[in-house]
Amino acid sequence: MANAIRALAMDAVQQANSGHPGAPMGMAEIGVALWKRHLKHNPANPLWADRDRFVLSNGHGSMLIYALLHLTGYALSLDDLKAFRQMHSKTPGHPEVGVTPGVETTTGPLGQGITNAVGMALAEKLLAAEFNRDGHTVVDHRTYAFLGDGCLMEGISHEACALAGAWKLNKLVALYDDNGISIDGQVAPWFIDDTAGRFAAYGWNVVGPVDGHDVEAVDAAIAQARQSGDKPTLVICKTHIGKGSPNRANTSKAHGEPLGAEEIKLTRESIGWSAEPFVIPADVAAAWNCQVAGAASQAAWDERFAAYAAAFPELAAEFTRRMAGELPDTFAEIAVEVVAAAHDKAETVASRKASQLALEHFTAKLPEMLGGSADLTGSNLTNTKSTPNLRFDAAGAVVKNEAGQGGRHINYGVREFGMAAIMNGVALHGGYIPYGGTFLTFSDYSRNAIRMAALMKLRVVHVFTHDSIGLGEDGPTHQSVEHAASLRLIPGLDVWRPADTTETAVAWTMALANKHRPSALLLSRQNLPYAPKTDADVITKGAYVLAEPSEVGFKEGKKAKAVIIATGSEVQLALHAQAELAKLKIPVRVVSMPSTTVFDRQSVAYKTEVLPAKLPRIAIEAGVTDFWWKYGCDAVIGLDTYGESAPAGVLFKHFGFTPENVVATVRKVLGA
Amino acid sequence: MANAIRALAMDAVQQANSGHPGAPMGMAEIGVALWKRHLKHNPANPLWADRDRFVLSNGHGSMLIYALLHLTGYALSLDDLKAFRQMHSKTPGHPEVGVTPGVETTTGPLGQGITNAVGMALAEKLLAAEFNRDGHTVVDHRTYAFLGDGCLMEGISHEACALAGAWKLNKLVALYDDNGISIDGQVAPWFIDDTAGRFAAYGWNVVGPVDGHDVEAVDAAIAQARQSGDKPTLVICKTHIGKGSPNRANTSKAHGEPLGAEEIKLTRESIGWSAEPFVIPADVAAAWNCQVAGAASQAAWDERFAAYAAAFPELAAEFTRRMAGELPDTFAEIAVEVVAAAHDKAETVASRKASQLALEHFTAKLPEMLGGSADLTGSNLTNTKSTPNLRFDAAGAVVKNEAGQGGRHINYGVREFGMAAIMNGVALHGGYIPYGGTFLTFSDYSRNAIRMAALMKLRVVHVFTHDSIGLGEDGPTHQSVEHAASLRLIPGLDVWRPADTTETAVAWTMALANKHRPSALLLSRQNLPYAPKTDADVITKGAYVLAEPSEVGFKEGKKAKAVIIATGSEVQLALHAQAELAKLKIPVRVVSMPSTTVFDRQSVAYKTEVLPAKLPRIAIEAGVTDFWWKYGCDAVIGLDTYGESAPAGVLFKHFGFTPENVVATVRKVLGA
Repeated sequence: MANAIRALAMDAVQQANSGHPGAPMGMAEIGVALWKRHLKHNPANPLWADRDRFVLSNGHGSMLIYALLHLTGYALSLDDLKAFRQMHSKTPGHPEVGVTPGVETTTGPLGQGITNAVGMALAEKLLAAEFNRDGHTVVDHRTYAFLGDGCLMEGISHEACALAGAWKLNKLVALYDDNGISIDGQVAPWFIDDTAGRFAAYGWNVVGPVDGHDVEAVDAAIAQARQSGDKPTLVICKTHIGKGSPNRANTSKAHGEPLGAEEIKLTRESIGWSAEPFVIPADVAAAWNCQVAGAASQAAWDERFAAYAAAFPELAAEFTRRMAGELPDTFAEIAVEVVAAAHDKAETVASRKASQLALEHFTAKLPEMLGGSADLTGSNLTNTKSTPNLRFDAAGAVVKNEAGQGGRHINYGVREFGMAAIMNGVALHGGYIPYGGTFLTFSDYSRNAIRMAALMKLRVVHVFTHDSIGLGEDGPTHQSVEHAASLRLIPGLDVWRPADTTETAVAWTMALANKHRPSALLLSRQNLPYAPKTDADVITKGAYVLAEPSEVGFKEGKKAKAVIIATGSEVQLALHAQAELAKLKIPVRVVSMPSTTVFDRQSVAYKTEVLPAKLPRIAIEAGVTDFWWKYGCDAVIGLDTYGESAPAGVLFKHFGFTPENVVATVRKVLGA
Repeated sequence: MANAIRALAMDAVQQANSGHPGAPMGMAEIGVALWKRHLKHNPANPLWADRDRFVLSNGHGSMLIYALLHLTGYALSLDDLKAFRQMHSKTPGHPEVGVTPGVETTTGPLGQGITNAVGMALAEKLLAAEFNRDGHTVVDHRTYAFLGDGCLMEGISHEACALAGAWKLNKLVALYDDNGISIDGQVAPWFIDDTAGRFAAYGWNVVGPVDGHDVEAVDAAIAQARQSGDKPTLVICKTHIGKGSPNRANTSKAHGEPLGAEEIKLTRESIGWSAEPFVIPADVAAAWNCQVAGAASQAAWDERFAAYAAAFPELAAEFTRRMAGELPDTFAEIAVEVVAAAHDKAETVASRKASQLALEHFTAKLPEMLGGSADLTGSNLTNTKSTPNLRFDAAGAVVKNEAGQGGRHINYGVREFGMAAIMNGVALHGGYIPYGGTFLTFSDYSRNAIRMAALMKLRVVHVFTHDSIGLGEDGPTHQSVEHAASLRLIPGLDVWRPADTTETAVAWTMALANKHRPSALLLSRQNLPYAPKTDADVITKGAYVLAEPSEVGFKEGKKAKAVIIATGSEVQLALHAQAELAKLKIPVRVVSMPSTTVFDRQSVAYKTEVLPAKLPRIAIEAGVTDFWWKYGCDAVIGLDTYGESAPAGVLFKHFGFTPENVVATVRKVLGA
């Protein structure tokens, strides 16, 4: 059975003339042990809520999971395998969730898969605590991850595995492909970690080393891992990369290139596999097929769930809603309430505080919201009255309050990248909408996980506070200059930089409503005055006319001579400048543009309405200017250097974010 | 003496009404033990080549290092301390190298300081192996780092400390401020690492826990650490954050806010410190002062170095040159040779290969070049004949070849962020020009360290290969789409995306010549034809006219009707389109723009020469389009979505990177 994986992997890589045969060939027996003997799954329904989750953290070994999915009976045909790495096939170079049935997450960027798995295992534990009832266990599955040396070298593996230990995620089982080879060769000169010792230090249960080519040994190790009551388990499997290939096994050449026709022939002989390429003998196919067992497994759960639904109809309905990722029917009303509250109060607060005000409403009404911060809770203001800190007791159970509720705000520690990729895992698992905070500058640390959320179309919300030089004294290491612009470049990510409480409330609404899109909210440390407006709905378009010349004393209908575009904390500056310009009889329009990414998706008609053709445009943002030229600006007031350590007011003045400078710039553009 | 630190820290933070008193107050005794009893330094000469390096990895505790620098006699006055966190002071919110004498690196982004320290310790070990001679030890210093829980939670600490163990950096001593408190409070629920066990697993020597408030205990621990022959040492110091403050000690409130006047009064009483704010009693000042001892220490070394220079005049001159960061006098000739060789051969190779060809020359002539790759050596092509792999023997010594040379190419393992911040540490130490490779997409992982290099003005070179959808089958997780544009947004970073061998050679030349600027070279996986050109010098301007209409059959002097701007692999496409347009009698100019960042620094006259006003502009780059509008483009041919897994040729066609599409776009712009 293991050789079926080997044959498919080497044949598909050969056919594509591209790919990584080493890992699938080296982990074939581990695949047999897990997928045939332990994994709870139903090939006919890859979305069954209580399936075990499987993550191939070493995603370059994609042919391993494709082979496993095909062999166990998922909707992935031999023709699909033959199209490995070809345009629009179901078998892309690295596994992609949403493209291949049975693939739970997109992997390839090393270390993130195991981190997603930590998020999935966390989601399982929280859902079980929330939904299971005595005699009714409807949430009870495991998360398995395969990972290699590369994942273990990556820093994010430290963040994620330390948290998995702290959270006592006993249903997480990681199987380590310990083959001692990475792309550069034998890892000994650069990777001497005592991995067992390292994971023991995180509070993990470590099993092995076992012989990774002995199905029985791996099977027994997994069985042992499944007994763990309060710790995640690492199973160390000693393996040979490219096992079966007489000349390539145990070499880095096995890792990332086709074996070649000759070596494939030799390998077939060596492993005694006589079938033609892409042919699986009927007996082997039958032995692999998991359709019947999978259907039975799900049927048993369906029965349990039916009993649960009979006993707890509301809970069952809520569980179904949550796992489908649907917002409550009342969401629109809740959102209107939140926005209206902000609008009515018209408070002057920092937008990070505005975010917390919005969160107070949303978290009170949406039990699926699962917050957190990378050790900056009091700064990011991601916590609310409805989201006590998540804690686990000594036995690993979720600590509940008197009302029987567990915590819903996570102290991720100083682990930004880990937080972001764990949030992705939580979102992939389903049942929760994760959000998490750090300072905007440290979005750099988590950037690739944000990208992965966008690539995977996941609803996760990043709360990035202290969004500019406005944070003041902490200085240039902490002052975001290029971050707003560079986040906007990530395809599929919505970026919001709201100017006041109402815009912040709308940003949250949109972030929650976008089921298939991550959002980043860039929020100020410093107070921002409310920007008076009549209509909050229009904020949902990403940019809108905030103040026409008539707002500053010109007669109704007076045409503007220029448009000032601003975001976030600079909107107040634009309004000040507008008033100053009015004194000089220069009528300008102020456009608030909290989300360029959302605005870019509006109709040409709307865009032209907001930014009329031929009207000069001046953009203001306390960040790099490059980005703004896309809106056809005639001038951009920004900051193309690093900031400085000084009080915020001093900095804004120093860097030219003053009404005087805006007025002068507008006049220069107009020649007035 | 420790209380002098406490007093200065709480007074300066109070005066600034901003800052972090907790760490300085908690690490005061550790400061005494290290700075008075072990640190080899000369306050009068913070740039002495053989000084010990000190890194405050928990950079928010900046008042600790400012107090230490002031007290030991550096050019940092009480007035400087009073200006803590004020505009343009020598005491910014986080320590900044180049701003404050004695500050070795800019810290604040957690985990990077200890990683810089690993780079510094590596540089020391390599320089010692290269320059010391029997009886002449001119390189012999240690690297000390202070770090807190935050640094240890960050993933990068895993990457860096695992490498420090593998490299047996026995002269690295990290002192861990183990106070059990981070911003969110008592760390126990989210940080349960057995840190001693973790570091033992990396091959470190672990000392302690010791009482971090007992100067003798810390002194003894450091003395023990200094005995380590083949392992770096972690000294675990149990401390109380905010020690001395009756009501704030041991709380997260001590971390990041002023104590307040009342609590400062109570603290003064509690620690028995009666001096007024910013007053250091004469006896305390005298006890702290290190000027005499420091001068003597350097004088002894100066004498040793004089003897060395007498015995090995060439080596001594070379050491002096290298530590000054000066290139060899022959650099200009070497560079001309490299560029001319590329130009003459006019080869069709991938630009990653072109980079290796240039590196063959440069590394042969510049012994200070220290290469590496994050486990993609064969893909990044960062290695050359002159740069064998760096290896250490069992005792921790650099393995040398028969010619007595150690390795100069580092296998960093799969640790992109660690690599980048270690390179920063190497550059900060001096003596080497570090460069390192990974795939462009994984610049996301190292992004903040790239930013820090730019902020610190360090000459490090990032070799980012596989720079677009042109990498093909590995698919969207590995295909850079937004990375070129987003790296260009980092202030102070030069980004190059060369089109052929000559441009690549020039890019390397410029990267090496820029002493105070990091560079990123974005290189193709796939072959790129040589773009014929007469003049290579002009490439140094970042953009230049590559082909006028006369190159494609129009008569000499024929004016172009439009300019096509392209970078890297898309330059060939621009040339194809130019030829196709010529068949339609449409003359266009092709501008190759390998570096927008360099071009942006040219004179207005040159920029206008290359991009004449009013001539329509069409940009082509296989990446997001947003960036290109800054050049006043009328159309941008790019890619605003993620890529796909398929052969490169298929992808370029699918996404519209074809001569036909370029021709159609130009015609549309011209209405022709």
